[in-house]
Amino acid sequence: MNAPLHFYFDFSSPYSYLATAWVDELAARHGRSVQWHAILLGAIFQTIGSRPLVDQPGKGDYARRDFVRSAALAGLPFKEPAHFPISTHLAARVFWWLHGQDPARAKAWARAAYAAYFAQGLDLSDPAALRAVCAQAGLDADAAEAAWGDPQLKAQLKAENDAALAAGVFGAPYLVIDSEAFWGNDRRDQVEWWLSGAGPRAMA
Amino acid sequence: MNAPLHFYFDFSSPYSYLATAWVDELAARHGRSVQWHAILLGAIFQTIGSRPLVDQPGKGDYARRDFVRSAALAGLPFKEPAHFPISTHLAARVFWWLHGQDPARAKAWARAAYAAYFAQGLDLSDPAALRAVCAQAGLDADAAEAAWGDPQLKAQLKAENDAALAAGVFGAPYLVIDSEAFWGNDRRDQVEWWLSGAGPRAMA
Repeated sequence: MNAPLHFYFDFSSPYSYLATAWVDELAARHGRSVQWHAILLGAIFQTIGSRPLVDQPGKGDYARRDFVRSAALAGLPFKEPAHFPISTHLAARVFWWLHGQDPARAKAWARAAYAAYFAQGLDLSDPAALRAVCAQAGLDADAAEAAWGDPQLKAQLKAENDAALAAGVFGAPYLVIDSEAFWGNDRRDQVEWWLSGAGPRAMA
Repeated sequence: MNAPLHFYFDFSSPYSYLATAWVDELAARHGRSVQWHAILLGAIFQTIGSRPLVDQPGKGDYARRDFVRSAALAGLPFKEPAHFPISTHLAARVFWWLHGQDPARAKAWARAAYAAYFAQGLDLSDPAALRAVCAQAGLDADAAEAAWGDPQLKAQLKAENDAALAAGVFGAPYLVIDSEAFWGNDRRDQVEWWLSGAGPRAMA
């Protein structure tokens, strides 16, 4: 029961950004670590025939308001970026590049990139802006750019995304605890209930 | 600020069923009453081009598991009915029939019908089963059947559904507090935050 939790996120997902603020701390309180997985929701949506929340019928205005409200309730900075949603493959490749060196550095990058995008409004899909975000996060921007253009990292991200699809991931944030899946920042209460052991007992 | 909350629900919506367990009590703690609106999500989905959660790409199995888990966490009985989702116009017309007499009776009917459907598995779209649910709820089954076949109540339900659409309702449960909308049983924390006054202050 001490296997790591698996946390799937996309850099363009506001609810994933909010979940990064609590997922490691909550897991740690229950003796668990969390393995983060940067994924590309756009590719997953294309494969399964889905689309971003803001493009779903009737939900756009509501979703935009709910992003702001959910962040305010969590006490986290949030401003809808001028470009949203965006393609996040470059930032995700930087994540996997760092992950190969040290998963903790990859998490630190994810947090920095989320803050740059959702608090500062920097466009992670724009190479010049992304270089600045990398530098701001203490990375060597040239090395980061080399990484996001590296065919091996392209292939790794594709493989990670295919693995997420195979694991049933259809949205983000998506958290898997043992074999139980939880979708959404708003499943935090269920995650806590599951990790406490009460959930598995109630569902047994 | 003492206007009633507006609570939109569909008899085939598991998350609406779960919300009926807390919405009135939570509102009352903040000096508010709740006006309930039985709607037809099927008609709304058809109009806006949406579909039930269980029919959305990739989400069916997850949603079914989440219904059970959400009910277990809330401590409410739940078993996915053999027929799900169902057409709920008959049960909704009974709601509006009773609502014209006394909104409290209409709420009592909604609670009874939800328990019959989601705890006992009785099919509210089947007239014979629905008569039994009415009788079990202390209603005159003949009068209820006359009501669900009444052209005036058909027209009223259609008008109520059109009004919900005009108010922006795209799913259920959908709660409107003053002009602020909250979608989903999982927005309970936000609703509490809003009613406490902290939400409006944070978003001002």
